[in-house]
Amino acid sequence: MNQQYPSVLLENAVNELAALPGIGRKTALRLALYMLRRDVDYTERLSSSLLALRRNINYCRACHNICDTDLCSICANPSRDHSTVCVVENIREVMAVENTLQFHGIYHVLGGVISPIDGIGPADLEIDSLIERAASGAVKEVILALRTTMEGDTTNFFLNRKLEPYPVVVSVIARGISVGDEIEYADEITLGRSIINRVSFKDSIRV
Amino acid sequence: MNQQYPSVLLENAVNELAALPGIGRKTALRLALYMLRRDVDYTERLSSSLLALRRNINYCRACHNICDTDLCSICANPSRDHSTVCVVENIREVMAVENTLQFHGIYHVLGGVISPIDGIGPADLEIDSLIERAASGAVKEVILALRTTMEGDTTNFFLNRKLEPYPVVVSVIARGISVGDEIEYADEITLGRSIINRVSFKDSIRV
Repeated sequence: MNQQYPSVLLENAVNELAALPGIGRKTALRLALYMLRRDVDYTERLSSSLLALRRNINYCRACHNICDTDLCSICANPSRDHSTVCVVENIREVMAVENTLQFHGIYHVLGGVISPIDGIGPADLEIDSLIERAASGAVKEVILALRTTMEGDTTNFFLNRKLEPYPVVVSVIARGISVGDEIEYADEITLGRSIINRVSFKDSIRV
Repeated sequence: MNQQYPSVLLENAVNELAALPGIGRKTALRLALYMLRRDVDYTERLSSSLLALRRNINYCRACHNICDTDLCSICANPSRDHSTVCVVENIREVMAVENTLQFHGIYHVLGGVISPIDGIGPADLEIDSLIERAASGAVKEVILALRTTMEGDTTNFFLNRKLEPYPVVVSVIARGISVGDEIEYADEITLGRSIINRVSFKDSIRV
């Protein structure tokens, strides 16, 4: 619907907000009106934090994770296991894995998965630098933690082939029934995988 | 959950975005990462549009609607009926009524409804200026288009009493079954009101 905004300033703000993913024009208007109700300090803080993020953000030279310095805090931490590298798509997966408190190695952020339909090929991802890390001899295991879609599987396959010449173990994270889920309602593929990849009972109770 | 952000810049941006209504920390992170993927121009345009809106916004001196000038385009339009004033809560209701193309009068934006529980009394709303408009003699009819909650009804009641000394007709918008809705599924209060406030068949087919 072509809405008539009573103010060009408001319309501009709504247009820019509505360009954000998941934000429609109605939500954008609600956000803009919220800013008008709050004092000007809030909008100034919001704007300057977004500009500071966009202008000054750094990517870790080792793992390509977002960080404020040359090397991220995980890569710079000597008590982490630098021989185990977890390959993830994005910083959000880094945060998710960190939240489990179960991983003590370091990461490699690919920046996405291979997806010909979206025009994303291996050259668009941080694959060469991963191979370099494997070639350096410092890495013993690479854990692939990509999404289970055709694109994720393709990327796993591609990375595994690229890593074959090097003396690294390539593993993938386990797929199975979520903890707490009813087996009755699990989809067949997940249930099937969880049977094929079953683990010894003694190993399963370590966590 | 206490998330660990790999960057202070990112954390600041997420904190400010998550202060917006309806935006949680996960959505805020998604929005911040989206800005990192887009070129810096976008974040600059977004920031400057929000700052321009917040710093330079004007409110119409007649109806208190948001506008860029001293008088909004509706109040400044001589072809609108300046003797019929539609009282609404906010600019969003102005836009909704305008979209119907059924109203040719002007507006009065109250800025909310009386709500003692939220600490909003008559003095916090643009009520005095509405009474002044009625007292000026230029207004023949005041149409109340507030929400049908206890707060909206209270405000209607208060405004009606305040407007009683002046020669204006006070009306409220019709409540009834939505066009296209099944009568079977309508709630009893709406259906009851639609029966009490029934209109002659001839009047009903005018639109």
